[in-house]
Amino acid sequence: MNNAIEFLKTQVGKDATNSPSPLMQWLNPILISVKEDNLIFEYEIRKEWLNPSGSLHGGITAAIVDDTIGATVFSFGEPSAYTTINNVVDYFSTAHEGQTIIAETQTIKKGKKIINVQCEIWNNSKARLIAKGYSNLLRIEKQI
Amino acid sequence: MNNAIEFLKTQVGKDATNSPSPLMQWLNPILISVKEDNLIFEYEIRKEWLNPSGSLHGGITAAIVDDTIGATVFSFGEPSAYTTINNVVDYFSTAHEGQTIIAETQTIKKGKKIINVQCEIWNNSKARLIAKGYSNLLRIEKQI
Amino acid sequence: MNNAIEFLKTQVGKDATNSPSPLMQWLNPILISVKEDNLIFEYEIRKEWLNPSGSLHGGITAAIVDDTIGATVFSFGEPSAYTTINNVVDYFSTAHEGQTIIAETQTIKKGKKIINVQCEIWNNSKARLIAKGYSNLLRIEKQI
Amino acid sequence: MNNAIEFLKTQVGKDATNSPSPLMQWLNPILISVKEDNLIFEYEIRKEWLNPSGSLHGGITAAIVDDTIGATVFSFGEPSAYTTINNVVDYFSTAHEGQTIIAETQTIKKGKKIINVQCEIWNNSKARLIAKGYSNLLRIEKQI
Repeated sequence: MNNAIEFLKTQVGKDATNSPSPLMQWLNPILISVKEDNLIFEYEIRKEWLNPSGSLHGGITAAIVDDTIGATVFSFGEPSAYTTINNVVDYFSTAHEGQTIIAETQTIKKGKKIINVQCEIWNNSKARLIAKGYSNLLRIEKQI
Repeated sequence: MNNAIEFLKTQVGKDATNSPSPLMQWLNPILISVKEDNLIFEYEIRKEWLNPSGSLHGGITAAIVDDTIGATVFSFGEPSAYTTINNVVDYFSTAHEGQTIIAETQTIKKGKKIINVQCEIWNNSKARLIAKGYSNLLRIEKQI
Repeated sequence: MNNAIEFLKTQVGKDATNSPSPLMQWLNPILISVKEDNLIFEYEIRKEWLNPSGSLHGGITAAIVDDTIGATVFSFGEPSAYTTINNVVDYFSTAHEGQTIIAETQTIKKGKKIINVQCEIWNNSKARLIAKGYSNLLRIEKQI
Repeated sequence: MNNAIEFLKTQVGKDATNSPSPLMQWLNPILISVKEDNLIFEYEIRKEWLNPSGSLHGGITAAIVDDTIGATVFSFGEPSAYTTINNVVDYFSTAHEGQTIIAETQTIKKGKKIINVQCEIWNNSKARLIAKGYSNLLRIEKQI
């Protein structure tokens, strides 16, 4: 295990106060599970996350997809950095204020230059798939 | 002109306090320009919008893309509602805290059932394209 | 079981001579397996399928993804028809003339109006993922 | 002008017999126009390009999008090669056997590592947008 995944394992059951991502601190999920290539987070839908119809805004869903995929790549603990090339989200159903939703990531491909990671957004019981997203990320050498 | 676009025209030069979208209220852009099928918004990048590298988080970019596309569809003033089928964002460069970015939408196709709208995210001078996104939306009959 | 999936089961082990899709006839895969929401096809890469570098052209990969997703939706045997809204393909590695590749589909979501199906393209041994694609399809009433 | 774009200019008004892409030879468009970052091709829809409904198969549309984007990147005449990371196609309307369709590409962003190019598919009179696609491509050093 690398240092990054070890750090994440210490955060299981906790909120995102210690996250290096300011956006994740604001979204403030609870980290539920940490496995290799696979993270699970839980979010409570807040008022600022709603669309004009009063349900979960697709923009927040996209933000959660992108942010949890970033955390998954962080968990690899690689010396290289990754930059997101694209982010695709397909929307299937919705959720409402105060409800709890689950984001679960899975690494699909670790290429030499390109990594592909997906994220599923589920309702609390994981009976209903709310959205599914995918990103390609490019490995870049870290500046020293 | 329909009522929706007339309302938007009254908001030019103002922030999003009057927006029907709670997420847009939180992102709080200034509405710069309202034309048929084409809206322009201006955002100031805040601390909660950053990624661990201290630059604009791709998740916020995706949220802006999705939210401004929603506003564009609202501007059509149609009796039907629209639900987002998917949202795709391609990332090209980045921006930093305190900087101003521009989101400009353009309707690509208005089909009978499916509408396609794009959104470009530019730096303040519109010299550098930061990201470009696209959504397909499905027309659904409003519940009465 | 519906008539469509029963027909497909009679085609296992055969090429696409009997396919209702002229493009599938031209691609001419062998149908390997038929399960609910999940089809497997095998293709031999031909000269016309190559790019200027002499490897499998991404356009053919996209055509295979789209065509096998169409066959999967056909296998539902529904009275409604479906039209493809979008098709996304992520490319991970490549393949060469004369090699055999595998396309395996999986239905991700069956909504009332929108269906989402994915397709993975593998090398012959399924050790290497060549590409992965996704489509959203819209249910439309068949014209009588 | 570089050698690649000079070669393409000699091909205007001709079919794809001289194309370095075996797939383009098979699709066999006529090259209509060559400008910097912008190519136009014309295709006649053949029987093998149809779906079970007898209209243009989305898989062929995706192949045309991918192939013309590849030709556009070729027209840059760069010493580096490019590999396609992803290909996204949104479908808006359809076309039928024997009809002529137009594919027009446009380079959206030329980054140091990533290039983004779009392709619109139009009916013959350019009155009706049939589909629109986008690709991200990664610059890779050519092997010597």
